[in-house]
Amino acid sequence: MDTATPSYDELTRTFTRLYRLQHLQSIASWDQAANMPPRGNEARAAAMAEMGALLHRMRTDPQLAKQLDKAEAEPLSEPQRANLREMRREWRQSNALPESLVQRAYLAVARCEHAWRTQRPANDWKGFLENFRPVLAIERETAELLSQQMGLSRYDALMERFEPGMTAKAVDAVFGDLRSWLPGLIRQVIAKQSKETVLQPKGPFPVEAQRKLCERVIGLLGFDFEAGRLDVSTHPFCGGVPEDVRMTTRFRDDEFLGSLMGTIHETGHGRYEQNRPRELLGQPVSESRSMAIHESQSLSFEMQLGSHPGFVAQLSSLVADAFGAQPAFEPANLHRLITRVKRGLIRVDADEVTYPAHIIVRYEIERPLVEGEIEAEDIPALWDAKMDELLGLDTRGNFKDGPLQDVHWPSGMFGYFPCYSLGAMYAAQWFAAMRRATPDLDARITRGDLAPVFEWLRANVWSQASRWTTDELVRRASGEPLNPAHFRAHLEQRYLA
Amino acid sequence: MDTATPSYDELTRTFTRLYRLQHLQSIASWDQAANMPPRGNEARAAAMAEMGALLHRMRTDPQLAKQLDKAEAEPLSEPQRANLREMRREWRQSNALPESLVQRAYLAVARCEHAWRTQRPANDWKGFLENFRPVLAIERETAELLSQQMGLSRYDALMERFEPGMTAKAVDAVFGDLRSWLPGLIRQVIAKQSKETVLQPKGPFPVEAQRKLCERVIGLLGFDFEAGRLDVSTHPFCGGVPEDVRMTTRFRDDEFLGSLMGTIHETGHGRYEQNRPRELLGQPVSESRSMAIHESQSLSFEMQLGSHPGFVAQLSSLVADAFGAQPAFEPANLHRLITRVKRGLIRVDADEVTYPAHIIVRYEIERPLVEGEIEAEDIPALWDAKMDELLGLDTRGNFKDGPLQDVHWPSGMFGYFPCYSLGAMYAAQWFAAMRRATPDLDARITRGDLAPVFEWLRANVWSQASRWTTDELVRRASGEPLNPAHFRAHLEQRYLA
Repeated sequence: MDTATPSYDELTRTFTRLYRLQHLQSIASWDQAANMPPRGNEARAAAMAEMGALLHRMRTDPQLAKQLDKAEAEPLSEPQRANLREMRREWRQSNALPESLVQRAYLAVARCEHAWRTQRPANDWKGFLENFRPVLAIERETAELLSQQMGLSRYDALMERFEPGMTAKAVDAVFGDLRSWLPGLIRQVIAKQSKETVLQPKGPFPVEAQRKLCERVIGLLGFDFEAGRLDVSTHPFCGGVPEDVRMTTRFRDDEFLGSLMGTIHETGHGRYEQNRPRELLGQPVSESRSMAIHESQSLSFEMQLGSHPGFVAQLSSLVADAFGAQPAFEPANLHRLITRVKRGLIRVDADEVTYPAHIIVRYEIERPLVEGEIEAEDIPALWDAKMDELLGLDTRGNFKDGPLQDVHWPSGMFGYFPCYSLGAMYAAQWFAAMRRATPDLDARITRGDLAPVFEWLRANVWSQASRWTTDELVRRASGEPLNPAHFRAHLEQRYLA
Repeated sequence: MDTATPSYDELTRTFTRLYRLQHLQSIASWDQAANMPPRGNEARAAAMAEMGALLHRMRTDPQLAKQLDKAEAEPLSEPQRANLREMRREWRQSNALPESLVQRAYLAVARCEHAWRTQRPANDWKGFLENFRPVLAIERETAELLSQQMGLSRYDALMERFEPGMTAKAVDAVFGDLRSWLPGLIRQVIAKQSKETVLQPKGPFPVEAQRKLCERVIGLLGFDFEAGRLDVSTHPFCGGVPEDVRMTTRFRDDEFLGSLMGTIHETGHGRYEQNRPRELLGQPVSESRSMAIHESQSLSFEMQLGSHPGFVAQLSSLVADAFGAQPAFEPANLHRLITRVKRGLIRVDADEVTYPAHIIVRYEIERPLVEGEIEAEDIPALWDAKMDELLGLDTRGNFKDGPLQDVHWPSGMFGYFPCYSLGAMYAAQWFAAMRRATPDLDARITRGDLAPVFEWLRANVWSQASRWTTDELVRRASGEPLNPAHFRAHLEQRYLA
């Protein structure tokens, strides 16, 4: 093939190969959560590890380093140069780590996560520590190697895997801001809401009716069922591949709002995936920008749009269609149910007002943990102190609803938690920008015209994928860098106005 | 690693790696049939082709040839030697074919199969020929290369992929025998049954009730739901991996026997897979012996056991439980429904008496087609002549219920069809051997004691996997080579006695 960019072309072919093989991993990983019977686990884990090792070998092939260097000197277009930048980023991440470390990490995490599934319900912190210490040691080793490779602090180096370009310094700034007003806001909102009457919906809510309701709402939100599905799994997530997005939820027949709002959340992830640029699919530049940007989509759907009073009014009639009318389904009451604020122990059950407090607790523990300033044994006391400080809750001795509640630490996913709250801030920032572009946005949402929301997200986020750094993407989309003031304004407007 | 068998050990590691990677392909392939939305197809096909190419490269790595040669000289145990024999066999199959041919075959088949899905309902034989000719040409090329590599005739070389050791000569002998008595038997059975009164079940049969019924029956048949599932797909099959077997069926609410008996059929495949020897899983010696032996398991379940009057009496009460009692569900009537013989155009709808006629038609066409004695254009006239001769049916102009009805030819699976009828013969031979070992077998089946059936199959077939050649397996299990007399005796006993 005679082109002016032979090395770049060769790289694109390699990344397409990687993309295709990862397709099988993604589907198998969705299957593991949605379908796999228990005795299939061992063989599946072995298959995934084998594939992981194979992909790691492909990513660390010495040829790649040479091609990346040569491609830098080739006459690339601007999108090609962005693609090369992202290739280099992926390459750096993989090549900083020897295969033996990747293997050890995989095994330590598999063991810790497996044990955690029974240790959590048993409230067994001591037992957990035994398996968690090796995970922490390996993650610190990983952090050290990534840190040397990238000239970042160790925590920043781990965060880079999920949120490229983000630093603890930047997180400290926005979380510091949050910390200054959040506890006060929570108190005010709870005081205000304590005066409201909220009717509880009367169940049962048959699972088949819930499933149909979710599918109708997802359809309303523009999800393409010809290129994706909704299934059931213990922990809801959005997986699969952009050409075939697999969202999951879970149903209980005594409650429907959890799975309905959860499904709306996953639909935000799903539409981002379904609308990444087609022509570049398979290339790193077409990947989603970061986990915070991904979360900004799910939260744009669940919190900004899905909990908007105008949208909730539309939900109201669909809910009545699904289960028969009842007073609790009236728009105003349904909105009160959806926006109810309550201090609680569990992050995944938290409302959007108290949620950031859960994230701050975790961030303020995992950062010094990775940096070696504290040890795993120190977690429970810190957890309790911070939960008391931020949410006024006593968590002593309750490990299962405390530091054992999330899969992230047993999985070695240090540096992930901040993405959730950064995502909430970006989502608020998107909607502020949307309102500037479409001044009657709220009226249009209220009359069921959601196109301005989807078109803005498509133009500014989905179609941009990884073309720009996150900071550049945010500036281009909203005219300013990350600005937590929009999140505060959103909460004050929705909960105190 | 210091062992006396370093090359053999290295080979086992390579085959374990292949096994693990194939796991992902198997799950993705099940997912494709059971879950995948239409727009996911292109990306899935690309992923599967990429993985296929990668596996082909691993199987044709020149290192393997050297290791196979060296391992021959190592001090191997008898099971290790059987494993080496099977490794060699797999190696020969892959290494006879250049990667370019494998790729061309993949593309030609994908195109032909895709077009066939609309050409079949449109009865478009001419359109089909356009895509089928390239498939046939590539399969002939494949046959020629395999034939040179293995010193077999071209058709035998293709059949070897599904039924190692089987030859057209042997098939001619057993099918020749069949041909001599089958048309007469069909006439006699139909004449006898025309005097019977058969009550038709009254529907509808709610799909959820059918699913529960199928699951109960599968459970009764010993399928391990902790290591497998039952789902729905357009064309029922048994896929997945031995550690996680994925069976599928399809439901219509106006008919239930088709999916019930189909599910019993797949359960035979499923139990074979679930009971292949654990300690050698991943090694070629632990693979199922052949497609005819696999089919002998599904037909042992569906025809020998599942249609046994004693078993049907048990089904009778489960069916009444599922849909409410009705006269058509009485044991004698249900048995008459299940064993009804009728000449028809469609192979997959055929009963066990007319089924072999469908296979003979296909075999007698595909063998000369592969050998180059006839061309694709000759198929319809031959099809019609043979259907007339064997079943007295006129198929002129009806391509969709004629040569277009099966996926095998558009998929290039020449040499597969004989396995179905060989499987039926083996199944009859197994039950003859079982009755010699357990003289009161029929009484025990009738009183619901199925253990002697499962134990015999486990000891003689499932646990033996690929330890012996097919011929040796058959002799060890039944004391004689393949003997179609058992199949004839079975049909005469069930349908004429």
